Amino acid sequence: MPLNTDWFTERCDKAQSAFSMKIREKLHDEQTPYQHIEIYETEYFGTLMVIDGFVMLTDRDNFIYHEMMSHPAIFTHLNPKRVLIIGGGDCGTLKEVLKHEDVEEVWQVEIDERVTRLAEQFFPELCDQNNDKRAHFHFVDGIKWVTDADPESYDIIIIDSTDPIGPAEGLFSKPFYQQCHRALRNGGIIIQQSESPLYHLDLIGSMRNAMKESGFEDVLTLNYPQCTYPSGWWSATMAGKENTLQDIRIQDVIDKTFVTHYYNLNIHQAAMAYPEFFRKSLT
Amino acid sequence: MPLNTDWFTERCDKAQSAFSMKIREKLHDEQTPYQHIEIYETEYFGTLMVIDGFVMLTDRDNFIYHEMMSHPAIFTHLNPKRVLIIGGGDCGTLKEVLKHEDVEEVWQVEIDERVTRLAEQFFPELCDQNNDKRAHFHFVDGIKWVTDADPESYDIIIIDSTDPIGPAEGLFSKPFYQQCHRALRNGGIIIQQSESPLYHLDLIGSMRNAMKESGFEDVLTLNYPQCTYPSGWWSATMAGKENTLQDIRIQDVIDKTFVTHYYNLNIHQAAMAYPEFFRKSLT
Repeated sequence: MPLNTDWFTERCDKAQSAFSMKIREKLHDEQTPYQHIEIYETEYFGTLMVIDGFVMLTDRDNFIYHEMMSHPAIFTHLNPKRVLIIGGGDCGTLKEVLKHEDVEEVWQVEIDERVTRLAEQFFPELCDQNNDKRAHFHFVDGIKWVTDADPESYDIIIIDSTDPIGPAEGLFSKPFYQQCHRALRNGGIIIQQSESPLYHLDLIGSMRNAMKESGFEDVLTLNYPQCTYPSGWWSATMAGKENTLQDIRIQDVIDKTFVTHYYNLNIHQAAMAYPEFFRKSLT
Repeated sequence: MPLNTDWFTERCDKAQSAFSMKIREKLHDEQTPYQHIEIYETEYFGTLMVIDGFVMLTDRDNFIYHEMMSHPAIFTHLNPKRVLIIGGGDCGTLKEVLKHEDVEEVWQVEIDERVTRLAEQFFPELCDQNNDKRAHFHFVDGIKWVTDADPESYDIIIIDSTDPIGPAEGLFSKPFYQQCHRALRNGGIIIQQSESPLYHLDLIGSMRNAMKESGFEDVLTLNYPQCTYPSGWWSATMAGKENTLQDIRIQDVIDKTFVTHYYNLNIHQAAMAYPEFFRKSLT
């Protein structure tokens, strides 16, 4: 049964599939110098942000993505003081990072300032820590930022970008990973959203290889559900510079004083399990 | 952008969302005495079976569901000899169960024989073990079958049904679980598909309570991705009769000689991790 125009639909060319949400109204529509941003009020998912036709986040399910893009890397790093977020303009990842009291400074480098301004307006709960003195906002190109960075200047780099087409394509490349490796202190970690294990196994494999070829000793892919992204099953891939990514600061996770809605110790450990088809694809 | 009639779309009323697959052609359309069955050839997911408008299975992703409905329960039971499948007419769960050499007999009790006949025709790879001498097929009502069963006659009961509306509604009820409990030997396990943790948390909670109130000592919900079901995130809930469901026959999983594509020991353990919102909903 075809859906009428009361629905927002994202088509996935790779899987010839589509995910749709019923909308109440379009709240905003804007062409920025970088991309086309739309904001909708949906029936079930709350507010929805769409960039260039792709779902970025909804009120209902963004917690899973933002928690998995932040806490696993931070609770793996032994001494996470300086965190860099590339992209992440909606500030959801930033908010999670700032929950860690041992993090001393966070730089959010988003190319399109309008994403952050619209997040402040339409997703205020994600931005309510933006006045934290540890948070620094820069609206410039993330690749240039990392290339210009001093060597060994960050502990964690979180690459919270759109899909590897268009502006974000360069963020999924060996030259960028080499710059990240250079900009990380020893024991440093990068983590990057890495699409669907079911639809994009080839991309994940390429990313993992490029990370290893860029000097990272250890690579680990985390799995988690994300119902508004294609296939509803998503991943993030971590790479460690002189770091073993299987080792979690277990006691610190158990003792954490802040609230999460998806992440906990069992979930962190579970996210590291590779399905049989995934494991075989790596060998 | 509305999708044209080249797409099959399943709407989820609960979440006011929809999932669509592009189709090449409709292969079959039939109204049985119980339900409306459609078979499509899709662009990416291979063959698709739809019952009463709901996706039942596709070639591409059914392995996850069928493996998670079978191997965790069997590798938890200490001595799984007699297995009953309620529903499961597509024979995908049956095929996985038959991979276990220690299983001596399997009864598949599906109310609608046409599901199995169409699976033989359109999903032959799921049915290629149907001639196994250990497999017994009965096309009758599953609730009546369990109610009429001798006490302590099964080790595992797998409830592989449609959603809890229409014909399958009675399978999600305390009277049915009480009959399952009666029909299980000590150490027995039931496992039932239990919808989406994100969309149907209330249903999962009700099922778990009803299972406990029916005499089961232990209840455990397993999480797994299932991209063609609503939200792309699905669950199965197990209940144990004098059995501890966290204890897996670890060495037997490691030593298994048959091939799986999703399931392995790490995945089994990972599936038992409860997200924070899920854990809190249980207390």
